Amino acid sequence: MSNKTNPGNYFEDFFVGMQIAHATPRTISAGDVSLYTALYGNRFAVQSSSAFAGSVGLPEAPIDDLLLFHVVFGKTVPDVSLNAIANLGYAAGRFLTLVYPGDSISAVSEVIGLKENSDGKTGTVYVRSVGSNQRKETVLEYVRWVMVRKRDAGHPALAPVVPELPESVAVSELVVPASLAVSDYDTALAGSSFAWEDYEVGERIDHVDAMTVEESDHMTATRLYQNTAKVHFNQHAGKDGRFGRRIVYGGHVISLARCLSFNGLANAFRIVAINGGRHVAPIFAGDTVYAWSEVLAREELPGRSDLGALRLRLVAAKDQSCEAFPLRLDERNYDPAVVLDFDYTVLMPRRAAFRPGP
Amino acid sequence: MSNKTNPGNYFEDFFVGMQIAHATPRTISAGDVSLYTALYGNRFAVQSSSAFAGSVGLPEAPIDDLLLFHVVFGKTVPDVSLNAIANLGYAAGRFLTLVYPGDSISAVSEVIGLKENSDGKTGTVYVRSVGSNQRKETVLEYVRWVMVRKRDAGHPALAPVVPELPESVAVSELVVPASLAVSDYDTALAGSSFAWEDYEVGERIDHVDAMTVEESDHMTATRLYQNTAKVHFNQHAGKDGRFGRRIVYGGHVISLARCLSFNGLANAFRIVAINGGRHVAPIFAGDTVYAWSEVLAREELPGRSDLGALRLRLVAAKDQSCEAFPLRLDERNYDPAVVLDFDYTVLMPRRAAFRPGP
Amino acid sequence: MSNKTNPGNYFEDFFVGMQIAHATPRTISAGDVSLYTALYGNRFAVQSSSAFAGSVGLPEAPIDDLLLFHVVFGKTVPDVSLNAIANLGYAAGRFLTLVYPGDSISAVSEVIGLKENSDGKTGTVYVRSVGSNQRKETVLEYVRWVMVRKRDAGHPALAPVVPELPESVAVSELVVPASLAVSDYDTALAGSSFAWEDYEVGERIDHVDAMTVEESDHMTATRLYQNTAKVHFNQHAGKDGRFGRRIVYGGHVISLARCLSFNGLANAFRIVAINGGRHVAPIFAGDTVYAWSEVLAREELPGRSDLGALRLRLVAAKDQSCEAFPLRLDERNYDPAVVLDFDYTVLMPRRAAFRPGP
Repeated sequence: MSNKTNPGNYFEDFFVGMQIAHATPRTISAGDVSLYTALYGNRFAVQSSSAFAGSVGLPEAPIDDLLLFHVVFGKTVPDVSLNAIANLGYAAGRFLTLVYPGDSISAVSEVIGLKENSDGKTGTVYVRSVGSNQRKETVLEYVRWVMVRKRDAGHPALAPVVPELPESVAVSELVVPASLAVSDYDTALAGSSFAWEDYEVGERIDHVDAMTVEESDHMTATRLYQNTAKVHFNQHAGKDGRFGRRIVYGGHVISLARCLSFNGLANAFRIVAINGGRHVAPIFAGDTVYAWSEVLAREELPGRSDLGALRLRLVAAKDQSCEAFPLRLDERNYDPAVVLDFDYTVLMPRRAAFRPGP
Repeated sequence: MSNKTNPGNYFEDFFVGMQIAHATPRTISAGDVSLYTALYGNRFAVQSSSAFAGSVGLPEAPIDDLLLFHVVFGKTVPDVSLNAIANLGYAAGRFLTLVYPGDSISAVSEVIGLKENSDGKTGTVYVRSVGSNQRKETVLEYVRWVMVRKRDAGHPALAPVVPELPESVAVSELVVPASLAVSDYDTALAGSSFAWEDYEVGERIDHVDAMTVEESDHMTATRLYQNTAKVHFNQHAGKDGRFGRRIVYGGHVISLARCLSFNGLANAFRIVAINGGRHVAPIFAGDTVYAWSEVLAREELPGRSDLGALRLRLVAAKDQSCEAFPLRLDERNYDPAVVLDFDYTVLMPRRAAFRPGP
Repeated sequence: MSNKTNPGNYFEDFFVGMQIAHATPRTISAGDVSLYTALYGNRFAVQSSSAFAGSVGLPEAPIDDLLLFHVVFGKTVPDVSLNAIANLGYAAGRFLTLVYPGDSISAVSEVIGLKENSDGKTGTVYVRSVGSNQRKETVLEYVRWVMVRKRDAGHPALAPVVPELPESVAVSELVVPASLAVSDYDTALAGSSFAWEDYEVGERIDHVDAMTVEESDHMTATRLYQNTAKVHFNQHAGKDGRFGRRIVYGGHVISLARCLSFNGLANAFRIVAINGGRHVAPIFAGDTVYAWSEVLAREELPGRSDLGALRLRLVAAKDQSCEAFPLRLDERNYDPAVVLDFDYTVLMPRRAAFRPGP
């Protein structure tokens, strides 16, 4: 193999405290926004319309939170997960400064934990990744852990370091974007008259709609994010792999489910935290994705009467309607239709912020 | 079903005079323009090049008229046609103020007619939809009528109200966009040396080229327009439906045919009216669309020596060349290859406006 | 056939010295950049990030060189190659003024050679095509030659005119874009620590990664370039053609291979010349493209200590890994897996221009 190509890091290449400056900074543009809309059909009014964004105090329509997530995630792939077997989990994700078209994003990661598996062939790598804009403001940070191959099974194991991670991001850690202020929220334009107060803890919402995935669509998305994981793109090699085909990038499923969730959560326009997430099963071209949500917590935000926080579980299932809210068969096993179990926190306007009806 | 999701309106939910402010305002960007080009390959020079647009008096390249139409149409779907069985017709469509990248579009509709069908299960809803920009200028208005399900067959029928609709938009109602003035039109750059005077009423043009539709393409387009009609996206449910598969959004076919029509109508760069239109048959991924046009009328525009109007019939057929101009088998039945019969009016430069040849 | 549609030029329609102003000028936007990324996943930092572009002296991220090439090429198709049987070769290609989002591109061609084939039915047409921006600056020029059908086999042959073409663009003819200056090049952000000096003549690099082509993807690309060659789009006619299916635009393969070559050539961010190129075999949807490169020459640039030139052969193969560097079976025949043999020259930072490591 040429010494010029990137072999990726193997488990024994990582060390706790390792700092990685990721390649390929990226200016996010209005073109990326259009593609994101074309890929998922998202309809959150704040991200869709600069006029509407202006009505909630923002200078123009910001970039969708998950588009930003995927761009940052994509940068980490060549360094963190090129030799990964599985993306195991997320925690402590926070969305901070809003990103607008024209902002240039770069990403760095720090290794915060390492734990070799008993088979001696793989281990779990924990990284905290941070995305920044051209002013060095943090726009996103999150922890993920992945199972990575060892280059050499004979390489001796070190003592495991497993970071302490919060079960969810605390309300006190949530950041409301600067200048975001809702005092005259137009529910007709937003597409829902349900306010933060209307969501009850334990409430479950079947998002009704569904989307079938095509090879072209998921590859287009994953290329847009400059994510280079080979399993998404190479049918020639994939046909001899475990699944006999290309695997859809897990983040594509998160975005599909999030955009389906508009139907029931139209006012949940800003993600402020990713508390956790599990890609329960892979999906493939031809699969149809459905989604449902459960309200896990409804929390006031200190000092804000216009906005509250909702912690949500977002579940995606394939080739099965979510009207029965598929989740688990038992404590150990997911329903075989479930492909994603995602835990995140959104901002939502409170009723006091709604524009009075006509 | 959760009370939070949108069930759409059923026939008995509409009343004549009902005003609907549609959700999801949308800022149209250069990214949308690029996607529109990538979806259809359109080549009208005014929309393709800001330099060329400048040569006809415009500040920059405007948004394609049908892209605007689809965006406005998409907004009406969740309120008007989520429970529709068929999109029956269009009339009285006018394109008014030009839209440019950065403009924020919103849409409202008024119910102008209702007529229950004799089966007691469905009825026709007539709406006039109006798209506006951020300055409240009307950019597009049109009437469409759709067959919508009743929620409850037992709901009593009211007296039918059927609006009077013009057979076509009168020349006196056509609007030439402000500042559009053609006095030095470069036919080489535009791709055709045929002027308004060269088109004869009754003339038919086979547009020669064709385009095969893929699942990814029509879904990408329909998501870009934030059109949420379920039949376009869900193969899992579609496989058990009437056609056993996803149905292509009818507007996608209009745009395909319009862009094919460049080859023969390259100077027809601005649509000013939609007089009528019928989606004769559905199309599906794998179908190849051909198109032909007939000149229905050639009309002078009062006070304009640079531009004239052409009223055109645009016919699309699937999996059949249009060299024989397929249309009808007899007065009642279309040729089975025909999928679209669309009646619209364009502006075209007159010969006096052409740049003298070298 | 209507006299309004474009029949394209046949061999006997061309004459040496003929000047063709091509239709459909095109403003290239940030939306086109996003689509290009979504189609190929390219990661060259200069084109990806305006912040990074600023660090090498540019006002913002320029348009990818091959996106420009395809846009210019697309314009020439309706006039030059609508009746072509094969695209035979390229030479003397130079990239000159950089193109940025918002620039409006137009193209002209001059016929510089004509040679009828002995069968009397076809001939080779040589054209020099020149792309310009809205300030009339040349952004790209190249020669290509295509085999074109005669309309009438009885049309008498003229004496052949075959232009002299350089085997490669001389170093003295290469143009470094104005203001491009590298003095603090961040190799971590760029994704490679290999400098111009590190590449040895004769060195071969397997780019490891691969990309499977979908119908939707190649048609989307080709429409984006407003390339109207029928063979790419019409499955209904294509099923009865020589290959029984749509053929992928050859330029799509060049871009796929170029973007795959990032893995091994991450610092080769600017193409300055196309020396030659041959589309060895067609590719179709479902094929997986791999690529490898060979360093043909490493040349200093007069007066520049920050940048050098590398002349590269870029080979693409389908459905076969490039670890064995497939090329030819013998002097006359290519390896049947090879689809592209492309010869081009890039700029690359020299080691002296690298930012000192931490």
